[in-house]
Amino acid sequence: MTAVDHVTDGRRLAAAQAAAREAGVDALLITPGPDLAYLTGYHAIALERLTCLIVPAEGDPVLVAPGLEVPAAKASPLGALGIPVNGWAETDDPYALVATLAPDASTVALADSMVASTVLRLRDAMPSAHQRLAGPVLRELRMIKSKGEIDHLRRAGRAIDSVHEQVPDLLRPGRTEREIGDDIAEAIIAAGHVSVDFVIVASGPNGASPHHEVSDRRLTVGDPVVVDIGGTMPSRYCSDSTRMYALGHAPDEFLQYYGVLQEAQRRAVESVRPGVTAESVDAVARTTITEAGYGDRFVHRTGHGIGLQTHEEPYIVEGNSEPLKAGMVFSVEPGIYLPGRHGARIEDIVVVTGDGAESLNNTTHDLVVVDAAFSS
Amino acid sequence: MTAVDHVTDGRRLAAAQAAAREAGVDALLITPGPDLAYLTGYHAIALERLTCLIVPAEGDPVLVAPGLEVPAAKASPLGALGIPVNGWAETDDPYALVATLAPDASTVALADSMVASTVLRLRDAMPSAHQRLAGPVLRELRMIKSKGEIDHLRRAGRAIDSVHEQVPDLLRPGRTEREIGDDIAEAIIAAGHVSVDFVIVASGPNGASPHHEVSDRRLTVGDPVVVDIGGTMPSRYCSDSTRMYALGHAPDEFLQYYGVLQEAQRRAVESVRPGVTAESVDAVARTTITEAGYGDRFVHRTGHGIGLQTHEEPYIVEGNSEPLKAGMVFSVEPGIYLPGRHGARIEDIVVVTGDGAESLNNTTHDLVVVDAAFSS
Repeated sequence: MTAVDHVTDGRRLAAAQAAAREAGVDALLITPGPDLAYLTGYHAIALERLTCLIVPAEGDPVLVAPGLEVPAAKASPLGALGIPVNGWAETDDPYALVATLAPDASTVALADSMVASTVLRLRDAMPSAHQRLAGPVLRELRMIKSKGEIDHLRRAGRAIDSVHEQVPDLLRPGRTEREIGDDIAEAIIAAGHVSVDFVIVASGPNGASPHHEVSDRRLTVGDPVVVDIGGTMPSRYCSDSTRMYALGHAPDEFLQYYGVLQEAQRRAVESVRPGVTAESVDAVARTTITEAGYGDRFVHRTGHGIGLQTHEEPYIVEGNSEPLKAGMVFSVEPGIYLPGRHGARIEDIVVVTGDGAESLNNTTHDLVVVDAAFSS
Repeated sequence: MTAVDHVTDGRRLAAAQAAAREAGVDALLITPGPDLAYLTGYHAIALERLTCLIVPAEGDPVLVAPGLEVPAAKASPLGALGIPVNGWAETDDPYALVATLAPDASTVALADSMVASTVLRLRDAMPSAHQRLAGPVLRELRMIKSKGEIDHLRRAGRAIDSVHEQVPDLLRPGRTEREIGDDIAEAIIAAGHVSVDFVIVASGPNGASPHHEVSDRRLTVGDPVVVDIGGTMPSRYCSDSTRMYALGHAPDEFLQYYGVLQEAQRRAVESVRPGVTAESVDAVARTTITEAGYGDRFVHRTGHGIGLQTHEEPYIVEGNSEPLKAGMVFSVEPGIYLPGRHGARIEDIVVVTGDGAESLNNTTHDLVVVDAAFSS
């Protein structure tokens, strides 16, 4: 059974309606974005013209869309679900149209990604409807991936792994992070992604900044290099993996904490199983790093969920007592950062299985040392 | 004087504060997106972690950002403006932090692109503050481009023109729209854009769907082809231009209305000058097309503003009585669509000058006929 089966047979919509009823929500209002894609398979472009799926807690969903987009909506899996598409003309008021299609809603739940210009216009068009977020209503559905979704994420993992396998050939003394990043972006597309979502090539001291992207810094012998990359596959599911490289012999200080990081990442993944909390996985990584004396150098959470978005629930962070369940998919990516010197991060996407975790990224966790003598 | 000067000397922020006072808004709350880029030059990535610029009507702006993003924010032009950056830790509540930084605000204006998950969390964190949209407060500022901004858009226009000049070499019988689109995407980047925003290659009957993108349809001799393409430049200003091509001899029926379309587009551009309304430009194009008997085949508005977003105000549409002013920049792109057969659109970006319009796209408006015999 594939994710597409779930979409086209309407089971996801039925589950969303059940969740809405349970949450006391009269209608879900879903604009283009990951929730719309999840519920209907319609990957609409977010435009200034309103597209909005109305999913009543009871009754049949309906899509409001600009007249221009009606053919595309009907041709998408949404059309195959039999959802009627209500087109509006350039001079119509689409917010009033949504209001007439959810006339008795006293509580509406809005897609988390809906833009403020839509939120406030819907508020004004439906003044008696209390607005809440759809995220909490849909989170359980979105968090627990089906077998089909996990297959999509497994393919995404293999695709980004194949890019990491090419990285050693791209690292040479004298090349800039940007040049290397451009080559990696091409390789991400060549590996089957439809878009490049991010490319971090953080060499030497830049590695100490977790969200550094690329710069014109030229690689030099002895640099550790953080390579954190991801893209979106044709299925719209995302990849994300971080590996560490070094150009020749990395500093001893780096090698010392790199071993700690490998241990922390491995232990955190080993701790993943149904029933343990999200924050406990963070605690496992953090404790290992803290006991080695680097606790204040691990400056971010351990991970984030991934699926139709690169970052989604569950977040693997202190304070999140969500118990893990089979089918959840998230990153495990502790890091150690020494400002002004260098830094390291190792990241795998893992699926919670019946009794543990399956890693979707399977290239080596060892520091990949590139022979710096290959400088030309 | 460049756009960057405006940003780094804080004049845009001062103008936004004056506009807020005039609109009765106590504070602007601006999350990552075009408004933040416009006001501060900080092109922040939109993440699930809250970044928010607080611009009080009186007093000094302050940025709230995740601790991880503080170095990037300070290194951006926002840092050079002297705006303090208030970092928050992974376990802090950033919405409460925003509330404490705008303690007396009874009316706040939210960036139009802010996501609902932020809108509603801010509503709950600041229950006594009425939420409005920042769009109407900032629209005059954003709509009237400075000389620096117009320079950026002029460069974007030249870049996309250079891509259109390469299109004839890519059109061959037997090639698919997708193959051609991939080549165009590469050319958009090679022409100096940092991202490809859209690539429409709509051949034969696909040309009758204004928002068709690409498909696996193979070009055949006699096809008219709509090519509507755009990207974002390093300045973050956008390009957008549509030209028409034909593979060999296009159908006579097509050639007949193509002349009407050229005339309609030319007249609409000629009608642009300060003081005329946005809707009157739409009316000029529409009247020409209607008088030739194709009124019901022109199924969309005539244009959209462009700048840091591909689509922004002013919209050139019936019902928009906004008087044009020097410095406004928008598309003029009438179209004629015969469902099941073919369609055509011609699009230039134009700047309103002191007494007329300057076109930023300057490749030919004639149908570019590609010799179909070059099939290999």
